[in-house]
Amino acid sequence: MQFDTLDDIRAFCRDLPGGDEASADAAARRQQNLTKPPGSLGRLEELAIWLARWQRRDMPRLDRVTIAVFAGNHGIAARGVSAYPSEVTAQMVANFAAGGAAINQIAKLAGAELRVEPIALDRPTRDFTVAPAMDPDEFLAALNTGCRTVPDGSDLLVVGEMGIANTTTAAMLCAALMGGHGARWAGRGTGVDDAGLVRKRSAIDAALKFHRGILDDPLAVATSLGGRELAAIAGAVLTARARRIPVLLDGFVATSAVLPLARLAPDILDHCRAGHVSAELGHRELLRELGLAPLLDLDMRLGEASGAAVAILLLRAALACHGGMATFAEAGVSGAD
Amino acid sequence: MQFDTLDDIRAFCRDLPGGDEASADAAARRQQNLTKPPGSLGRLEELAIWLARWQRRDMPRLDRVTIAVFAGNHGIAARGVSAYPSEVTAQMVANFAAGGAAINQIAKLAGAELRVEPIALDRPTRDFTVAPAMDPDEFLAALNTGCRTVPDGSDLLVVGEMGIANTTTAAMLCAALMGGHGARWAGRGTGVDDAGLVRKRSAIDAALKFHRGILDDPLAVATSLGGRELAAIAGAVLTARARRIPVLLDGFVATSAVLPLARLAPDILDHCRAGHVSAELGHRELLRELGLAPLLDLDMRLGEASGAAVAILLLRAALACHGGMATFAEAGVSGAD
Repeated sequence: MQFDTLDDIRAFCRDLPGGDEASADAAARRQQNLTKPPGSLGRLEELAIWLARWQRRDMPRLDRVTIAVFAGNHGIAARGVSAYPSEVTAQMVANFAAGGAAINQIAKLAGAELRVEPIALDRPTRDFTVAPAMDPDEFLAALNTGCRTVPDGSDLLVVGEMGIANTTTAAMLCAALMGGHGARWAGRGTGVDDAGLVRKRSAIDAALKFHRGILDDPLAVATSLGGRELAAIAGAVLTARARRIPVLLDGFVATSAVLPLARLAPDILDHCRAGHVSAELGHRELLRELGLAPLLDLDMRLGEASGAAVAILLLRAALACHGGMATFAEAGVSGAD
Repeated sequence: MQFDTLDDIRAFCRDLPGGDEASADAAARRQQNLTKPPGSLGRLEELAIWLARWQRRDMPRLDRVTIAVFAGNHGIAARGVSAYPSEVTAQMVANFAAGGAAINQIAKLAGAELRVEPIALDRPTRDFTVAPAMDPDEFLAALNTGCRTVPDGSDLLVVGEMGIANTTTAAMLCAALMGGHGARWAGRGTGVDDAGLVRKRSAIDAALKFHRGILDDPLAVATSLGGRELAAIAGAVLTARARRIPVLLDGFVATSAVLPLARLAPDILDHCRAGHVSAELGHRELLRELGLAPLLDLDMRLGEASGAAVAILLLRAALACHGGMATFAEAGVSGAD
């Protein structure tokens, strides 16, 4: 799957592939007959039904789970908005390759394949306070990297990111598409100090002014105020939709990456669930705006798909019950009065 | 471990064994050096440190995880407070033995050993609206069953229950020890209808009147208004404390079972975490009262340790990161500016 122009994306969003309601209904009927009071497994029931809908199988499976972590660098980092230098993006990509990061441990535990895609790390986006971060060709190239990363036969896609300064980019997208100034959206990210937080907010406010002419065009916002790893996440989510692969979104940055898509088509995230709500300022409000109820709330704020990867374990619990439990009839258990 | 009198329990609670702060400190120092911004794994960091404190090991492990599910029957069931007949308690115990229940699937997924202890199912407690549910000998016998169920070398104990009508018992304990009438604490349990809910509330209100003379004595409340499976949970939690085994509590009923202990000794739950907050009315408020922040909030309300068993997976994620991640020095990653 590939998008050659921004209009290709708009066209895809006008005619979105749907899920399979017959599979979802069959899964919901099965849940009613399992040896438990109806509804008592709560969101585990909803997750089994959601996986059935998008996998188009009454009995969904998680044999092949793919975690895609995209990495990018950001011109805005030069404004002192992060606690860490930009070199850390590449250093962490090396850490992913060596197996030393949090996501390596969680991916292994969750039985998932980890794909790390660094995108032009030696070519940071431009400082969006004074220029468009990317031009449309750069945006599309990054987005198509995301498209190519989704394996054909995946049962579940988990998307995350790594990129020093990218919580500034995420807050930027929220301010541009949801309103409000830097103070509403800019949090401490990896742990920036008070002075850095002021610089972060000011950068967003300056960019809102500089780019005021494009704020009503979601894809122009994603291009001029976004980042390469965010564009790749958007591409991966679009490709998963085309292939009916269910998706778990990671934290604030990953969720902000799909906000421009949601502005094009409100239903675009039906095949997605929010793996968790992070501790980063703005994520809870962004999720509410998108109608996504997070599966976990563990005060995590690491990125690199770590929160969503933990949520894979909840999906496995949901399917263990869905596939393994006895029905009332099989177990000889009396039903409700 | 065994308690021969109620005073034995009181004596134990006056001089509680503590955790190991040296192990906790070492685990906290390790977390600071792993390749992530300090604190960015949120509660996963706190969980690793908590396990280190109670296992008395810098590098905690979950090689032997025990799930104990206690089952009991309740005289109050005769008042029509549940959607299911009392026979379902024994039928579900058979379902546990046959491997068909939710907890069987989740225990297997989480790598835990499941121990099911039915306690005198053919001898329900007495209807507490007109008599003490148990006498002290019956209470102690059930409590000691819980004590005997905890294996010596367990790395983690997860406690849950099965017992038709026991959300009425749990609500009863909350009303007796936290105040308020039936309407404050009685929820729909397995799914009782409106008329049943009225009966449930009325039963609690009647019992508050009948037992008004004992409400300031937590162990008298646990004896006269509790249940056998709840007593066993209290015994298991006390034994785990003596052996410094960390504990995950399941839902509303399991948490209410330790409320009398918390009234004896506010620190008694330091070795415990709440696996989840259930959808049952009252659980969130009870957890707040006990100072327990739940790990999961998935709208589950099944009992049988199912919510806490899902939370085992979070502990495994915490330890996978704690033990497996590289330090900044090992990975050659730059620290914060």
